[in-house]
Amino acid sequence: MSGDLVRPFAAGIDGASGGVDPAGVVSERRLSDLRGLFRDAAALERAVGEGDEVVYRVVAAPVPEVEGEVPFSVTTIEAGRVGDEFYMTRGHAHPEPQGEVYFGLSGRGVLLMYDGEEVRWVEIRPGVAGYIPPGWAHRTANVGGEPFRFLAVYPGSAGHDYAIVAEGGMGARVVRSAAGYEVVEEPGGAGPAVREYYRRRKKRG
Amino acid sequence: MSGDLVRPFAAGIDGASGGVDPAGVVSERRLSDLRGLFRDAAALERAVGEGDEVVYRVVAAPVPEVEGEVPFSVTTIEAGRVGDEFYMTRGHAHPEPQGEVYFGLSGRGVLLMYDGEEVRWVEIRPGVAGYIPPGWAHRTANVGGEPFRFLAVYPGSAGHDYAIVAEGGMGARVVRSAAGYEVVEEPGGAGPAVREYYRRRKKRG
Repeated sequence: MSGDLVRPFAAGIDGASGGVDPAGVVSERRLSDLRGLFRDAAALERAVGEGDEVVYRVVAAPVPEVEGEVPFSVTTIEAGRVGDEFYMTRGHAHPEPQGEVYFGLSGRGVLLMYDGEEVRWVEIRPGVAGYIPPGWAHRTANVGGEPFRFLAVYPGSAGHDYAIVAEGGMGARVVRSAAGYEVVEEPGGAGPAVREYYRRRKKRG
Repeated sequence: MSGDLVRPFAAGIDGASGGVDPAGVVSERRLSDLRGLFRDAAALERAVGEGDEVVYRVVAAPVPEVEGEVPFSVTTIEAGRVGDEFYMTRGHAHPEPQGEVYFGLSGRGVLLMYDGEEVRWVEIRPGVAGYIPPGWAHRTANVGGEPFRFLAVYPGSAGHDYAIVAEGGMGARVVRSAAGYEVVEEPGGAGPAVREYYRRRKKRG
């Protein structure tokens, strides 16, 4: 890797707006960016036609994603559902198996994790840190009525593999229930190639 | 590296007490553990004789410090001074050059960084994240009247070198002033061996 060295700095993290100041890259995902991920494809297309809202926004601090650096960002997931499934991120795994820490800032969400065979999830609220071990894909969903925001911190070498989640799923969905929400495991599970992808990343020598 | 794989989990982070639940390793440093670090050695010895208080405590989450994992911890620095110098951590550099993120939880502190030649510092308060780039030694001091607490997140392969700070200093001290506090650079600077230590760690190929 090459590039300018990052200088020491401080960034304001606004838990009420999801802002990071100074900010680096900002990315937004609308409903139309999430085709194929929600169970109810017809409901998704209706919502795309009705305004294609922003589902989530990620504001990164100005730290590059390279070996040695430790990037951080704030994600805001809006409140909403597609059918009975809560608004959520695309979800990804790290091609280089590195852990990650999420720290809740506002609202209430579910951090869903999947290793190709097993599903684990934890609820994230302000003052709760979720730990994503190396080798686990992860996705967050907003299960509350207001925006859900969290700070993410991860090694710059980790990378992002969205395709493995688009292909192999997350093993479960976060849906509305009488109690508010529930995490429902999906029948069948991923195929052998997806399981092998995760197994390779979870080994510790 | 070897060992059991860490499982996904969530930890409660109590910004009012400095607690982490579940917790891993807890470490405490008293005044007597900080001999040689404050400028006023006589004032330190008097304070050691008067009860040797705890200066800071680090409560780690149960994530091991190994390659691939991303440990996190909460540090609480008590309010106080040795002479005119604020209570502070020992300070360390990472033998493997990896960055680190500090996120303020309560109180007010200074994050002091040093690369063997240059001093940089930022103030950390609740809602402020400080970024420590690879190759910079770091120390925090409590510049307020209540405990200063922050969440730290860092790659598990980084390691901790306390000796380089004990030997080469931090290039500056955080002391009381009419305005509350100031960061005063130390004359002279580190020797060539210390400067070379940091230079080796800041290179990006």
